[in-house]
Formats: sequence, C-alpha cells, structure tokens
Amino acid sequence: MASFYDVVHRRRDVRGEFTGGVVPTDVLCRILTAAHSAPSVGLSQPWDFILVRDMDTRTTFRDHVQAQREIFANQLDEAQAKTFARIKVEGVLESSLGIVVTYDPQRGGPAVLGRHAIDDVGLYSVCLAIGHLWLAATAEGLGVGWVSFYQEQFLRELLAIPTQIRPVAWLCLGPVDKLQATPDLERHGWRQRTPLAQVMHDEQFGRPARH
Amino acid sequence: MASFYDVVHRRRDVRGEFTGGVVPTDVLCRILTAAHSAPSVGLSQPWDFILVRDMDTRTTFRDHVQAQREIFANQLDEAQAKTFARIKVEGVLESSLGIVVTYDPQRGGPAVLGRHAIDDVGLYSVCLAIGHLWLAATAEGLGVGWVSFYQEQFLRELLAIPTQIRPVAWLCLGPVDKLQATPDLERHGWRQRTPLAQVMHDEQFGRPARH
Repeated sequence: MASFYDVVHRRRDVRGEFTGGVVPTDVLCRILTAAHSAPSVGLSQPWDFILVRDMDTRTTFRDHVQAQREIFANQLDEAQAKTFARIKVEGVLESSLGIVVTYDPQRGGPAVLGRHAIDDVGLYSVCLAIGHLWLAATAEGLGVGWVSFYQEQFLRELLAIPTQIRPVAWLCLGPVDKLQATPDLERHGWRQRTPLAQVMHDEQFGRPARH
Repeated sequence: MASFYDVVHRRRDVRGEFTGGVVPTDVLCRILTAAHSAPSVGLSQPWDFILVRDMDTRTTFRDHVQAQREIFANQLDEAQAKTFARIKVEGVLESSLGIVVTYDPQRGGPAVLGRHAIDDVGLYSVCLAIGHLWLAATAEGLGVGWVSFYQEQFLRELLAIPTQIRPVAWLCLGPVDKLQATPDLERHGWRQRTPLAQVMHDEQFGRPARH
C-alpha cells in the first residue's frame, strides 16, 4: 500500500528530464498491459495505442506543437506570458517514444452497457487507460509527459487515424534522469496546488466537508 | 513494482460485493489525497468530490438508476436483454458511501495552460483523478463501482450542483467481501476482454505492432 502511494506521489508530467534512452520491450509490454487493464464502460476497451518512434513524424508533430504554443502565448497578458516563456510544454524529441492514445466510439457497440445516458463515458474510459499507463511507467522508473498543444485534426492526418476515431493524448514516454519533486508549473510560478479540503463537499455541492 | 501491478490487476468494478461497512476517515483521506494528486491540465485540478452518505439521497438516486436501466434494457435484442437481466449495474445502497466527482471548466481559467486547442482536456483530468481514486481504494482493500446509468441533469439537481459544473461519475466506495477475479460483464457473458496486440499500432493507425 505504501509503495502504491509512493508511485502516486512520485508521478510527474515530464518535459525536461528525458534522457533519450530506449524503453525496453518487456517494460513497454507491462506498461501497456496495465493500460489495457483499465476499467471501461461496458467492457468496451475503446482505446488504441499508436507507438511512434519515427524521427520525421515526431519532428513534424513537435513543430506543430511549437506553433500551437505561440497561439496560446499570444492570448496571455504580459505577466503570464513572461512566466509561460520559462515553461517547456513537450519532450517529443527528447523522449524516445510517443504513444498516441485514441478513442473508438463504435467499439463494443451499438449497445454499450452503461453509455446510453452519457455518451462521453466512452471517452472517460480512455482517460482511465492513460492514467494506468502513467502510473505503471512511474512504477517502472520511467517518465511520462502528456502533450496537449495540438489540433486533433492535425494529429489524425499525421498518423492516418480514421475520421471516426478521436485522438485523446500524445504521451511522451522514456527513461528520465530524475522526476522533479514539485510539478513544473508550480516550480515556475504558473499555479500552486490547492489543499484537498477545498474540493470536498458534504452531501451537496457547496457544503464544506471535513475529512 | 510487483505490488503496483498487483493493485492494477486486482481492481474491479464492484456491484454485488459491498459489505455495507464504513470507510474509516483516515483511509478515505488517503484515497482522496491520491485522487487530488492526479495530473491535471495547467495544474487546474478541476475536480470536486461530493461525499454522499444520506440514505434518502442515495435511495432517490438508486431509483433513478433503476429507471435508466429499464430504458437501456428496452433497446436490446432478445438475447442481449436476457444476458443483461443477470447483470447488476449499481451498488448505491449496498456500499456505505457515494462519491460524486464533478468537473469545473472555469477552475484555473480563463487561460488554462494546455487547454486552448482541446477543450475536453479539462474533463480528461477529472477522469485521471477518478482512476487514482479507484486504484488507491483497491490498494486499501476496498471496492469501487462506477455508476453511469443516470441523466446528468437529474444528478445536478439532486446534489445542488451549479449549472456550470458537470457531474462526471457516481462512484460507490466501501469494504467488500472479495473482489471477483473476472469482470462481471465477462462472467455473465456480456463481453470478453480482448488481447493487447489487437489495440497496438506501429507508427500509424492500422499497422499492427508487436510488443
């Protein structure tokens, strides 16, 4: 139990700490098996994993991410822009492997048990697989960085993802020289983590809960 | 590492195995702390946790879930309906605690770092918190069951959730007499889990990957 919580609290969103080392095949297999064991609505397992190692593909994606970064930077006020300039948002080339996780809404259909009232539950399942992957990689001593500075349609075209399939994440995976003790955004002064008590409610929304 | 994978592979979506026992306060605190330590876009931590113990509230919700179950059942063909009749979809009253997890899109805004290109990334963060909660509860020897047979608007009204906040999950949490070795839906013949190789792609979608 202690070792489980240790993994949870060591986990970081990695950008600058990738060594460029290769992920051994057996390690990758254990990590993806953990992702594939995530809970899913109606046991639909609606995810796919595209393993991207090709340097041209990753360079094209990295350039797109940099352009998207500029779009975001231009939306910020002066103080925010100054802080943001210090923050690295991706490690697409520094990590040796990209794992693109996608969502297939037709998997297990047409009647997916548990999805008739809330269509997004299928998408939620994919996120749980990503969470499993991330923690498993951390348990293995590797780092993961979720890149979200991209247009879905760009990534779809880059990786020949069919129209009905939705890309959900580009994850950078690889060995790291260390995991930071404090999240990058906190270290660089973008935002501080909040205390748990602030998000706990008792019986109804808005009634503070003690724990 | 072995103990981490043990948690991943023991985890189940629980319906029938809740004992009704209480979750000790310190255990609940550790579980929610793990959830609150999940990665989030722009460190926005856009989740809230509503702890629902009140029996009237839970009974009202359970009745709604049963009605939604009927709506789904009526969409099935005869063979599916027969299989579905054997499957329990919630343990709202049998577990001692409901945790409703919600998403606040305004948290950390207006400029959430990493969300300008893909608005749903905030919602994805909430799902990662749910995944952490689920694995932490499993590590603690408890069970979790995600209930998704409900209309979001119904739950919003039941728990006084403001309009701009979106309910993402009702999670049943509590002690269990055991965790099943095989998922309920597989045991009851609804659907089988697929091999990992089926969802792995090499460089582009549709090219089989070996691992």
